[in-house]
Amino acid sequence: MLKVGIIGATGYAGAELVRLLVSHKDVEIVWFGSRSYIDQKYADVYRNMFRIVDARCMDDNMAELAEEADVIFTATPQGFCASVISEEILSRTKIVDLSADFRIKDVDVYEKWYGIEHKSPQFIQEAVYGLCEINREDVRTARLVANPGCYTTCSILTAYPLAKEGIIDMSTLIVDAKSGTSGAGRGAKTPNLFCEVNENMKAYGVASHRHTPEIEEQLGYAAGEEVCINFTPHLVPMNRGILATEYATLKKKVTEDQVRDIYEKYYGSEYFIRVLDPGVFPETKWVEGSNFVDINFKIDQRTNRIIMMGAIDNLVKGAAGQAVQNMNLMFGLPENEGLKLVPIFP
Amino acid sequence: MLKVGIIGATGYAGAELVRLLVSHKDVEIVWFGSRSYIDQKYADVYRNMFRIVDARCMDDNMAELAEEADVIFTATPQGFCASVISEEILSRTKIVDLSADFRIKDVDVYEKWYGIEHKSPQFIQEAVYGLCEINREDVRTARLVANPGCYTTCSILTAYPLAKEGIIDMSTLIVDAKSGTSGAGRGAKTPNLFCEVNENMKAYGVASHRHTPEIEEQLGYAAGEEVCINFTPHLVPMNRGILATEYATLKKKVTEDQVRDIYEKYYGSEYFIRVLDPGVFPETKWVEGSNFVDINFKIDQRTNRIIMMGAIDNLVKGAAGQAVQNMNLMFGLPENEGLKLVPIFP
Amino acid sequence: MLKVGIIGATGYAGAELVRLLVSHKDVEIVWFGSRSYIDQKYADVYRNMFRIVDARCMDDNMAELAEEADVIFTATPQGFCASVISEEILSRTKIVDLSADFRIKDVDVYEKWYGIEHKSPQFIQEAVYGLCEINREDVRTARLVANPGCYTTCSILTAYPLAKEGIIDMSTLIVDAKSGTSGAGRGAKTPNLFCEVNENMKAYGVASHRHTPEIEEQLGYAAGEEVCINFTPHLVPMNRGILATEYATLKKKVTEDQVRDIYEKYYGSEYFIRVLDPGVFPETKWVEGSNFVDINFKIDQRTNRIIMMGAIDNLVKGAAGQAVQNMNLMFGLPENEGLKLVPIFP
Amino acid sequence: MLKVGIIGATGYAGAELVRLLVSHKDVEIVWFGSRSYIDQKYADVYRNMFRIVDARCMDDNMAELAEEADVIFTATPQGFCASVISEEILSRTKIVDLSADFRIKDVDVYEKWYGIEHKSPQFIQEAVYGLCEINREDVRTARLVANPGCYTTCSILTAYPLAKEGIIDMSTLIVDAKSGTSGAGRGAKTPNLFCEVNENMKAYGVASHRHTPEIEEQLGYAAGEEVCINFTPHLVPMNRGILATEYATLKKKVTEDQVRDIYEKYYGSEYFIRVLDPGVFPETKWVEGSNFVDINFKIDQRTNRIIMMGAIDNLVKGAAGQAVQNMNLMFGLPENEGLKLVPIFP
Repeated sequence: MLKVGIIGATGYAGAELVRLLVSHKDVEIVWFGSRSYIDQKYADVYRNMFRIVDARCMDDNMAELAEEADVIFTATPQGFCASVISEEILSRTKIVDLSADFRIKDVDVYEKWYGIEHKSPQFIQEAVYGLCEINREDVRTARLVANPGCYTTCSILTAYPLAKEGIIDMSTLIVDAKSGTSGAGRGAKTPNLFCEVNENMKAYGVASHRHTPEIEEQLGYAAGEEVCINFTPHLVPMNRGILATEYATLKKKVTEDQVRDIYEKYYGSEYFIRVLDPGVFPETKWVEGSNFVDINFKIDQRTNRIIMMGAIDNLVKGAAGQAVQNMNLMFGLPENEGLKLVPIFP
Repeated sequence: MLKVGIIGATGYAGAELVRLLVSHKDVEIVWFGSRSYIDQKYADVYRNMFRIVDARCMDDNMAELAEEADVIFTATPQGFCASVISEEILSRTKIVDLSADFRIKDVDVYEKWYGIEHKSPQFIQEAVYGLCEINREDVRTARLVANPGCYTTCSILTAYPLAKEGIIDMSTLIVDAKSGTSGAGRGAKTPNLFCEVNENMKAYGVASHRHTPEIEEQLGYAAGEEVCINFTPHLVPMNRGILATEYATLKKKVTEDQVRDIYEKYYGSEYFIRVLDPGVFPETKWVEGSNFVDINFKIDQRTNRIIMMGAIDNLVKGAAGQAVQNMNLMFGLPENEGLKLVPIFP
Repeated sequence: MLKVGIIGATGYAGAELVRLLVSHKDVEIVWFGSRSYIDQKYADVYRNMFRIVDARCMDDNMAELAEEADVIFTATPQGFCASVISEEILSRTKIVDLSADFRIKDVDVYEKWYGIEHKSPQFIQEAVYGLCEINREDVRTARLVANPGCYTTCSILTAYPLAKEGIIDMSTLIVDAKSGTSGAGRGAKTPNLFCEVNENMKAYGVASHRHTPEIEEQLGYAAGEEVCINFTPHLVPMNRGILATEYATLKKKVTEDQVRDIYEKYYGSEYFIRVLDPGVFPETKWVEGSNFVDINFKIDQRTNRIIMMGAIDNLVKGAAGQAVQNMNLMFGLPENEGLKLVPIFP
Repeated sequence: MLKVGIIGATGYAGAELVRLLVSHKDVEIVWFGSRSYIDQKYADVYRNMFRIVDARCMDDNMAELAEEADVIFTATPQGFCASVISEEILSRTKIVDLSADFRIKDVDVYEKWYGIEHKSPQFIQEAVYGLCEINREDVRTARLVANPGCYTTCSILTAYPLAKEGIIDMSTLIVDAKSGTSGAGRGAKTPNLFCEVNENMKAYGVASHRHTPEIEEQLGYAAGEEVCINFTPHLVPMNRGILATEYATLKKKVTEDQVRDIYEKYYGSEYFIRVLDPGVFPETKWVEGSNFVDINFKIDQRTNRIIMMGAIDNLVKGAAGQAVQNMNLMFGLPENEGLKLVPIFP
């Protein structure tokens, strides 16, 4: 039985970790960390957990937690994990960090886009970027996994095979992404109020969103070249779900079947990636509550572009589900253990 | 391994049965019945099931189905089950009927409220009303279970202990219920279009909704007297969830603690019924996706009334979840097998 | 040209006042009061007002405002208006107070339900309860109008004719009301976040909501007796709209036509009250954006109860629209000036 | 007083025409055409119009209508207007066609994208494309105006000044558009049901949506070259609103101020186009219910692209509002008569 600690258990991603882990047969949650709700019953903060979780929220004492837990999930704001991590802690426990602290290899890029000083750059190289379908083997042996961002998971996986195979001109790649509002977190801010989000849609972080360099770095590895893209996130009046619509110019003449073969080559045996049938485009509702990524594409002969589309549940494959998938890999469990979630519809 | 057939597998209740049963470890679905989609792939109708269900939809051949299946779920319009059921079929298989055909013991009441002739009144007496928490023992041995309606499940369970203990004046009982739109089914009707439901709320079926006699009959058994109530359903712009707000005059002076003890007496050991802490009122979101019923109450000293509130997911405890719970009982499985669903939030 | 000042212009009710008054041909807004946004451009707080309102937000200097404005709207938290009002101010300007400060004639009742001390009880008797359809004549000559609450406007108007005519047993009256989320205001609180409200429904303030004594007082005047009711508000995932479903036992045998005649007697010549055709029940969407109240009823012969239903836009007839209606009356303008708003659908 | 006839008055665009025209001081609606609801009271189909519209729906007799009406709005499916128009009709009345029949000058392009034969190609050249801000003078004298599509209005106006001034490389233009569900019409189709749209987002018509050639034609005129773009529409769970996010490579080095000057040059004196302040991006809610187009942009130095964003209410500026704007121009009325609608928020 794996002993698991969660720091930041009362954010939406942390709460989703709890939802997944209480049903995971090999796991026991031993620490529900939440600075904001110390000593309060967890089920009083998330009442869906009434009679399911009896524990109270605890402060984030990393030293003590490292003793008790086989693995710690940090579902915390940027900077937290980097500020508490140490060799001593990593020698006793493993960490899956859901923040951006260890996602970007170039510390300057991190500090520029996030506007904070990185407190533990010495662990950046060791950290494994936990996009399981791409870095599976490295994750298995990692002590520290940087769990990818929600937008980035969706954006990267949607384009990855074509970047890798050199089918698309990376300099033309544009990612127009749309997210449900849980991605904005549970902080009490006016722009996230029901009446401000409902019946509304907007772009935000235009040409400046922090997930941009993460997508660029990972797709750059795939393409074998530096990648610089446009990434535009949008806020959608729904709780969960990310849809990424991606545009790129084709570098060579390819047929739909050839592209389908490429996706099949990379994802054909992936449990969590579903390349949809021809003509069927992803919808966020079809993956809601699950760890699936639904992907499809369309070639536009008129413009010589390919339009790629991907959909995930931002809290599952975009956060907690992927974190559990990483944990499963790190501890030699079946990769989909506790994650064979059937999407809920409607 | 139980072999299960579903007739009406492409309605919302049928689709929820599929969602629950594909994850049920003792069950194999052998028949996805759907008159509207015969020979089409089930996963083309409900694309969340892509790569999870490979089967195609089939017509509803009861004779053949009775051969193949240990249990048949009929998630069909009123009148269907009564028109196809027979002694021969019941001798070979069990039936959980999600329609109203066998819920009401008085065939005249059924025919009056539903406006159709009952084709198999001879099975009405045998049928067990499958509200598991109340009729558990009868369900275990039943061949034919009448799965309760969504509004009725919520309305009855919320008031049942107080009706049973004679605490409330049944002639004063008023049930004001609110439902998500999946309760209206998947039929393509203008009033159920997104733009008609969204940003809107209304009462419907005022003083005439068909779930009224079902609530009256069951609460009448509990109270030991004929019961005649007001039941008003409302349509709410959300997918899932029923909230019942119930009002009744107290027959005697009771304290909150005494009432709490009564709920505890009836529901204290029930897995699926959660009587909330004092002052915490049910919210539909806290049970979404699960088979839980959340219940609480408040006594108003000023008016000598008690306000009881209950919340369920209309597609789970209000339909498919309860149907599976009944199946578990009928086949000697643990009652919550396949139903330990953690509510999804947000 | 009436000069109008608004205190609390950046709350939802204040913003709705702005929306209505900028289109009102006899009005000029001279003061956009907002403590939270002093010196900021109003259109930066409510960007729908870009190029429509050029003014900046100002502090709430009542003395100065009384000089400049013919009428002041206080769309402020409870207690504010009572704390700043004075004979001097009332001698120079008129006030329409959208808070509860002057709605309840019994100061003890106010202080008990609102939990604050009333700072200006000397003006309570003078204040006119601004439910125009009932107190029209008194409003015309008032210096200080207490604009009714949103729930109360809907709840009172729906039952008023039957209370007045003695048709219903007031001791049996139960009001089950449902409101869109703008009623909760623009304060940044976790329970009002999109993800907490969306796909959710709950009761709140059960047997304790502050609008209860206001409804009781006004319906008490109508019925000529003390009235004590159950009032249960619910939060609905929509921006605007209140639906009140009200239940009462009939005191005498009446037909639907007789009841319809009573509604006709009181509301037949009212511009803003629409008694719907038989069998058509109010929906909040049909009044959205307008000052209409849609009302209908159904008699249940089985229980001898009448179910009355009313729908309003909580920000218009439930707040700003009614405030403008009061202003029109106070200044001798046509009562519906600036309020002939056509409901927006969908 | 202009006499106005509407054919297709019971679709969402037709109903919005009614909403706008009943408040238009120079207009009388003399014909509420609706094949589906002949002889039914219009207010029984759209109950928001109760006591506002007393008329009944009528069949679409063009000859009779041409006698009675000074202008006819055809808010009908593609092909209808072309099938009924004639020189005789145009000699007696003017037509604003909200369908696509006369939007595209090349009849082959129309027939290819719409898959139907054009019944009146002889009127295509005469028809004026009614994007008022661009073709204002031609509209004034037109007998037949082709009212632009919803997506196209938003997409074209957002990019028009930069296309016209040769700032952007038109071969790189990508339009990623998101629309509320009223754009899908009031037809009772399963994909438009509340439960299918709510909590869901998807792309549709990828590389094949019919508004593509319309955008290309109009931006081609502006740019003075043939234009071939990618246009991807998405369905969003909200009633109203279109947001277009557009990407293009800059042809020359320009500053934000220079681009702002260009927008100012074209739109600085336009009543309905609001170029937002720097750093403020359009949100659909800020234009809801109004005829405004909110536009802004951001230059991404890293990729040398400009991201342009535009928002409209699809039923107002995207359909009925623009139709009324055209009517105003055609009859010499102030262009914004009846259209000084303040956006409704929240």
